[in-house]
Amino acid sequence: MSTPLYHGGDYNPEQWLDRPDILKRDIELMQAAHVNMITVGVFSWSTLEPSEGDYQLDWLADIIDSLWAAGISVDLATPSGARPHWLAEQYPEVLRVTPERQRRLFGQRHNHCYTSPVYREKVRAIDQQLARRFGRHPAVKMWHISNEFGGECHCPLCQQAFRDWLKERYGTLEALNKAWCNKFWSHEYTRWEQIESPSPLGADTDNGLDLAWRRFVSHQSIDFLKWERDSIKAVVPEAQCTANLMYHFYDIDYFDLAKEIDLASWDNYPTWHKGSDEGKALDTALMHDLIYSLKGKPFWLMESSPTMTNWQDVSKLKRPGMQLFSGLQAVAHGSDSVMYFQWRQSRGSFEKFHGAVIDHSGRADTRSFAETCQVGEALETLAAVSGTGRPKQAAIVHDWPNQWALEDAAGPRNAGLGYWEELQRHYNGLRKAGLAVDFLNQDGDPAPYGLVVAPMLYLLREDFAEKLRRYVENGGTLVVTYWSGVVDENDLCYLGDAPHGLVEVLGLRRTEIDGLYDGETRRCVATREGGTATGSTLCELAALEGAEAVMVYDEDFYQGLPAVAKHGFGKGTAWYLATRFEPAFYDRFYAARRADCGLAPAWPVPLPEGVYANRRDRFVFVQNTNNKPVDLMSFVLPAYGTAVFEDGKRIY
Amino acid sequence: MSTPLYHGGDYNPEQWLDRPDILKRDIELMQAAHVNMITVGVFSWSTLEPSEGDYQLDWLADIIDSLWAAGISVDLATPSGARPHWLAEQYPEVLRVTPERQRRLFGQRHNHCYTSPVYREKVRAIDQQLARRFGRHPAVKMWHISNEFGGECHCPLCQQAFRDWLKERYGTLEALNKAWCNKFWSHEYTRWEQIESPSPLGADTDNGLDLAWRRFVSHQSIDFLKWERDSIKAVVPEAQCTANLMYHFYDIDYFDLAKEIDLASWDNYPTWHKGSDEGKALDTALMHDLIYSLKGKPFWLMESSPTMTNWQDVSKLKRPGMQLFSGLQAVAHGSDSVMYFQWRQSRGSFEKFHGAVIDHSGRADTRSFAETCQVGEALETLAAVSGTGRPKQAAIVHDWPNQWALEDAAGPRNAGLGYWEELQRHYNGLRKAGLAVDFLNQDGDPAPYGLVVAPMLYLLREDFAEKLRRYVENGGTLVVTYWSGVVDENDLCYLGDAPHGLVEVLGLRRTEIDGLYDGETRRCVATREGGTATGSTLCELAALEGAEAVMVYDEDFYQGLPAVAKHGFGKGTAWYLATRFEPAFYDRFYAARRADCGLAPAWPVPLPEGVYANRRDRFVFVQNTNNKPVDLMSFVLPAYGTAVFEDGKRIY
Amino acid sequence: MSTPLYHGGDYNPEQWLDRPDILKRDIELMQAAHVNMITVGVFSWSTLEPSEGDYQLDWLADIIDSLWAAGISVDLATPSGARPHWLAEQYPEVLRVTPERQRRLFGQRHNHCYTSPVYREKVRAIDQQLARRFGRHPAVKMWHISNEFGGECHCPLCQQAFRDWLKERYGTLEALNKAWCNKFWSHEYTRWEQIESPSPLGADTDNGLDLAWRRFVSHQSIDFLKWERDSIKAVVPEAQCTANLMYHFYDIDYFDLAKEIDLASWDNYPTWHKGSDEGKALDTALMHDLIYSLKGKPFWLMESSPTMTNWQDVSKLKRPGMQLFSGLQAVAHGSDSVMYFQWRQSRGSFEKFHGAVIDHSGRADTRSFAETCQVGEALETLAAVSGTGRPKQAAIVHDWPNQWALEDAAGPRNAGLGYWEELQRHYNGLRKAGLAVDFLNQDGDPAPYGLVVAPMLYLLREDFAEKLRRYVENGGTLVVTYWSGVVDENDLCYLGDAPHGLVEVLGLRRTEIDGLYDGETRRCVATREGGTATGSTLCELAALEGAEAVMVYDEDFYQGLPAVAKHGFGKGTAWYLATRFEPAFYDRFYAARRADCGLAPAWPVPLPEGVYANRRDRFVFVQNTNNKPVDLMSFVLPAYGTAVFEDGKRIY
Repeated sequence: MSTPLYHGGDYNPEQWLDRPDILKRDIELMQAAHVNMITVGVFSWSTLEPSEGDYQLDWLADIIDSLWAAGISVDLATPSGARPHWLAEQYPEVLRVTPERQRRLFGQRHNHCYTSPVYREKVRAIDQQLARRFGRHPAVKMWHISNEFGGECHCPLCQQAFRDWLKERYGTLEALNKAWCNKFWSHEYTRWEQIESPSPLGADTDNGLDLAWRRFVSHQSIDFLKWERDSIKAVVPEAQCTANLMYHFYDIDYFDLAKEIDLASWDNYPTWHKGSDEGKALDTALMHDLIYSLKGKPFWLMESSPTMTNWQDVSKLKRPGMQLFSGLQAVAHGSDSVMYFQWRQSRGSFEKFHGAVIDHSGRADTRSFAETCQVGEALETLAAVSGTGRPKQAAIVHDWPNQWALEDAAGPRNAGLGYWEELQRHYNGLRKAGLAVDFLNQDGDPAPYGLVVAPMLYLLREDFAEKLRRYVENGGTLVVTYWSGVVDENDLCYLGDAPHGLVEVLGLRRTEIDGLYDGETRRCVATREGGTATGSTLCELAALEGAEAVMVYDEDFYQGLPAVAKHGFGKGTAWYLATRFEPAFYDRFYAARRADCGLAPAWPVPLPEGVYANRRDRFVFVQNTNNKPVDLMSFVLPAYGTAVFEDGKRIY
Repeated sequence: MSTPLYHGGDYNPEQWLDRPDILKRDIELMQAAHVNMITVGVFSWSTLEPSEGDYQLDWLADIIDSLWAAGISVDLATPSGARPHWLAEQYPEVLRVTPERQRRLFGQRHNHCYTSPVYREKVRAIDQQLARRFGRHPAVKMWHISNEFGGECHCPLCQQAFRDWLKERYGTLEALNKAWCNKFWSHEYTRWEQIESPSPLGADTDNGLDLAWRRFVSHQSIDFLKWERDSIKAVVPEAQCTANLMYHFYDIDYFDLAKEIDLASWDNYPTWHKGSDEGKALDTALMHDLIYSLKGKPFWLMESSPTMTNWQDVSKLKRPGMQLFSGLQAVAHGSDSVMYFQWRQSRGSFEKFHGAVIDHSGRADTRSFAETCQVGEALETLAAVSGTGRPKQAAIVHDWPNQWALEDAAGPRNAGLGYWEELQRHYNGLRKAGLAVDFLNQDGDPAPYGLVVAPMLYLLREDFAEKLRRYVENGGTLVVTYWSGVVDENDLCYLGDAPHGLVEVLGLRRTEIDGLYDGETRRCVATREGGTATGSTLCELAALEGAEAVMVYDEDFYQGLPAVAKHGFGKGTAWYLATRFEPAFYDRFYAARRADCGLAPAWPVPLPEGVYANRRDRFVFVQNTNNKPVDLMSFVLPAYGTAVFEDGKRIY
Repeated sequence: MSTPLYHGGDYNPEQWLDRPDILKRDIELMQAAHVNMITVGVFSWSTLEPSEGDYQLDWLADIIDSLWAAGISVDLATPSGARPHWLAEQYPEVLRVTPERQRRLFGQRHNHCYTSPVYREKVRAIDQQLARRFGRHPAVKMWHISNEFGGECHCPLCQQAFRDWLKERYGTLEALNKAWCNKFWSHEYTRWEQIESPSPLGADTDNGLDLAWRRFVSHQSIDFLKWERDSIKAVVPEAQCTANLMYHFYDIDYFDLAKEIDLASWDNYPTWHKGSDEGKALDTALMHDLIYSLKGKPFWLMESSPTMTNWQDVSKLKRPGMQLFSGLQAVAHGSDSVMYFQWRQSRGSFEKFHGAVIDHSGRADTRSFAETCQVGEALETLAAVSGTGRPKQAAIVHDWPNQWALEDAAGPRNAGLGYWEELQRHYNGLRKAGLAVDFLNQDGDPAPYGLVVAPMLYLLREDFAEKLRRYVENGGTLVVTYWSGVVDENDLCYLGDAPHGLVEVLGLRRTEIDGLYDGETRRCVATREGGTATGSTLCELAALEGAEAVMVYDEDFYQGLPAVAKHGFGKGTAWYLATRFEPAFYDRFYAARRADCGLAPAWPVPLPEGVYANRRDRFVFVQNTNNKPVDLMSFVLPAYGTAVFEDGKRIY
């Protein structure tokens, strides 16, 4: 039997053990909604182990059996995302310490020390209890390791682990001092014990330290994930493991994390209907594509709300059709599931007003239940899509250490660099040109792509600069922006001409960079035809050394200096964008690049505004982000409508 | 001798003991200003007991004797609002602990631990010294217990008191865990000692805990008040006690507090002349009516500024006539006093620029002194008003636990629910319809009122829902808004149809609720005539089950769903408002309801814009909030002018 | 040999000791840029003393020798601005304690305890090592004591030093309690040990304590400076010492500090091209004049950026010509140097993107290097200007204790008093009238000035009031604004008529003061001609007692009360401004006062808009703040251009 597209979501039956009528009704309603995958166990620790060593797994066995009897598979979560009271009371070291060096009290979730040996031991014990009891249950198709990893701890155990990690990385204090430029402000360490994590009470502007700490936090979070994964696989070697990731996430290098899991998955909560739906859809699409790129294969949409969230500023309802649209959008971009947080609303506490398939009324005649059923039906119709891959056309470089270093630096614009905004503008231009977009980090390989974009690649590793150079030499098309090639992997500035490693490729060098206030712009003009564009945020000044200026600044003292430059290098072409342009610029720019590169759009003819196509293998999804019907000649897409084609034939 | 209307204010002669000339001049000026009530002793502890057990009360005896000799009565304060240095140095436990678990240093005021046995003992000792010395002095008509109670303490003593209070309330941890939905995020307690007050360092989103903590803080604050009251009454059983309350106050359930005092009083500091004076007058009027409602009888205006405050963003002067207007407005709404903070400005420290009757110049030829004299004269003229009550016409439900729970919840609009704004719009509509307005909490009785309004009654107790149901059945008119009947008294969501307990009464049930961003609105239209209105903030969607839609939404996907509904139930009528309308809506709506209910306005004919009438027994006050004269046919009211009628005859 | 104008800046060769090629190149480039003064040693401690007592000075000797061999003098910094790790690890008492009483961790800079005996001892040891080795080196012309003094420490050592300082100042607790009005809120101290520095956790609204703490922090910072100065002078009695000061600096009374140094210097980082360049130039000019006034003689521009900063919100490039303009502007106002932070950019850490003469490219063909050379040439041309003084014409009173007290008070406008904005408006008016402006504190002497302006002189010492009185009596022209003469030197309000000490001089007394919201204004009209003006922020109301109302308010209830008043007193004239007027008012007002007082402008005929002239002895500088040329009849100034005349003959 081939794998279906999964439909389902988070379920917390431990909250309803005194209501068997509700537990029974849940199964009936899941079946009615074409649910085939349910996540259980997230935050269930206090019910699974109500006191130390007292494991109570029978209730969960009953639930899993009931689900499986109803044809529903299980994504089984380890409960480590929230510890029980008794654990924190008995072993205070499991509680995090803040950057101000205060031990936290019990409360919230996602806030245990990732280093604590006691916490790891207790987590291994409960995880292996689960693995032994349920690891070979036919329902259990996936392990959901902890929940939404993130955050940091500054306890003494973590300080020591940080120092050990630094010793491993730098070998000697002399090397570390040099890499971090510690002569500055006499910050040289003379003993390893002097090293402390960044703190508002101490070092908070030492960029080398900051970047190392970010790398360590990412490393240690992943190390904890591996601990849990290995605990399970020690019992059930064939277990499949995932971790649910998050939007624009900062704390952890997801490319590193993805190596340690079998499947990428993420939790998607767009603020639909705030601003334009098309903009929100593109913002969401970028994230789907990033998650797909982590492992280069289909992922799961692990969480989404069928109606509204409760933690955003304003809890806005999804309009009719939007639940279906956004579920199928995930599939179009490479998801093999559409899952919700949550199946049934909690009666109390922080998330009691988070949207759910079944709300407090318990009714099935609701708008959200009806639309959930539609999603279930669609996923059944589209089952053959499961497992299919996407074409490789364009790639955008997104690298966690680059973002960490870029945003940590003081200057050239502390009022905001708009890193994600920069990525999004390139992404949107590529998508409007109909191209499939992947994301690469500096461990990645540009070779398979027809077009590679490197926006604000401030921290540029020597080896990746070399990869980019070879990529262009061999015929690739590379787009590099302002504020690239500035520092090495330790955030130490390269000396000599810049962008470091790309001066020959781009045929120019940076001379200065000018910060613009919010609202300030600089007019730019094309050097051949009559086109204009508008720069903002940062205007880099460059001296041409072989490249051709395609556009130039048309005001301020840098009038006449290149705003867009083009340079043939080897068999390929390198483009340089000296500033942040208005969004429409990128639409024109990437339409022209698609033509240059001979890349085929997902849909053969131009699509109406707000309509986007995605290819997965032989399937093409066409989606309408407009809240009104659009005519595509051969068919009409309703508001928020989706059409799916298999080898050109419409199947949905 | 009947009780007069009181005129006077706070006086701190301990600051001037080295200036007998000033103390003497004060008495002369008080007499000139028709002052007959002076509050002394607030914050005088360090002068009354300069070192532990060394009581120095003679200076206060001299002051009280001088006042009484000049015909001036005394409101004697206990000094517990600010402890002396020696007390905090000797007994650090009296200092509060912050939510972050830091013991505060000495400083400020209103920040002692309400639980500390040492503090209670020291307070009892000084209070009883005062009571024994002055409790039967003929001047002492009132006891002013401490000052502006509020705030909270997280010290170990308070933690233990909280746990004891919880044991009393819930009996078992099992019951508590269930009431707070502690399965969520594995937050179940297994030992009472695990319970800690909410903290940014620990639990800060557990709504059940949060609400219990709010109730405990209110309880413990009132318990401290009772301790002081009982200390005094143990010496002087016939002592009359008050506590000075505050605007839109959050920390303490004033309905509970009011049960423990003989007289309600409050401190009133409107930002006059910021925005419209009419709006500010209505905002002030609401508070007067709320304070009146606490005990259902006349209160005191304990503090107000004759000129400006010094702690608001901008210290704006009261325009000519405003001091008189605002003093008489308090009386019109049920106050038996007009009192100021403060009689004479301090020379130094935080409040040295707070307005006073006598400023640093020491002059009596000031604008504020002249207007103070006018107030004194007016109060003498109106002495017969003292003690008279107000008619019962309309009531608005304002319930502290409801506000605490409503504002603590995450969702449906974290950007702001505008709870007080909602109350104010209903209040203003009722006032413009000429009705007297009381406030009820859920211990209150709707029966005596012709019209009862329940805005955002999110936390609706089963017993109060039953009272409302019987109220309508028996012929009452009830207005219920969106986001009502959501949770029980523990903030646990009701299961089943909502608004819980009112579905039959309203003839409809809630299906969803949509949050609107600031500035977003939804057009609504009347189903019969051509009227329109505009919804904002939150739009509740409801399914009619017997009610009639009087207005419906006219846009978005909920076009056609009810915005205003009406339902006959028993002998009465229930109204439902699904969203927050523009202010003018409520003016029309309540004018119509007044007519439906056959309630008589305070003034028999329509009043010009900005003019309001209030009835106290046989007296009617008519006040002009406009900064220009208005013609009322039979007479002209000057800018900010007041007319008072006794049985229809003008007496002021 | 006479002293030249100095050109150069901060240099950190310790960061490049492994790059002798770069050290060599630096000397060559300095010579090319006409550099003759280099600051070394700032933050070099960890290289000078890598472990306790291990002094390594040879590298610095090499650098100083090389510089001197190239004709470059040295400004030698003590390294106390940033301690090495080993010092903080070994002696934690050197780390500051925050107002919340937390000991800081190692990190940042400028954050050592100024009281710690250990820190002082270690600083003396390294300072004297430097003095012994380099104190008589012919290159070493100046000692740069520490760096940018500021901040505060709340450790137990500082608490005790504060108490000792208070005992010295007040003698008895009784005197202190009275001076601080500690009867208020029962804040009387009964033991010295009860006194704690202000803290958000304790006393933070006791104005008397706050002001004393400010004075103590200033005193203790200066005491530390004296400790370093004396350490050096004990070895090299003839050593010349400076300290680099800062913009609008709050923490330290610079008039007090300046008494302890031989030369004033400051660090100047305007946000050029944000808003109008003319406005920025005036803002910078005010600071130059303030720094000149500290010692009444030429100062040094110690730091400035040749291109951009990296710590401001937006790192904006200086436009072509601006580096030269701003360097010469400093000289025009009394600087004998133009120096940069920094000579060469650091490779890493917080300031790596701060502008420098030599950037990471290492190139000399940059815009900033070229302009640096132009500055060097200009300074050589203008060498004769060095040491020349400025005329005494107008003085503005700026007094640190006044600012501290004024801004600490609650009321009359907590939304912002705009103290510096008030100073700037007067300054700009005086400058547009062509006058030289000095600044005075209350230790200063108004006698030599033709015109003295006292804006918002809230804290007015009795002795200074007396000086002002005598100044007017003897024929001076005095301008006093609203909110003056309110409190004594302890921030205790004066009793009786106000402005205290000036009622007779001004011929009027304050009755009230009205706060205006942002955007609110009050129209004012002239009593004789048809002129109008607009008041804002605060409107003081006054009763005339002899003065003539020149303008009156023309709206609100204070219509007709004086807005501008004039009073002849003795042989002089006193002016009173009751509110903050629009900027243009001050231009007209001071043009008229210049005429009244018979003061001569620096340039004999009216200058075009945006052009300013300054006199230093026989030299006159004329500068164009416009980004376009202006025609001055006899010559044309280019955009941002400068002309210099010696005895009327153009020399630059």
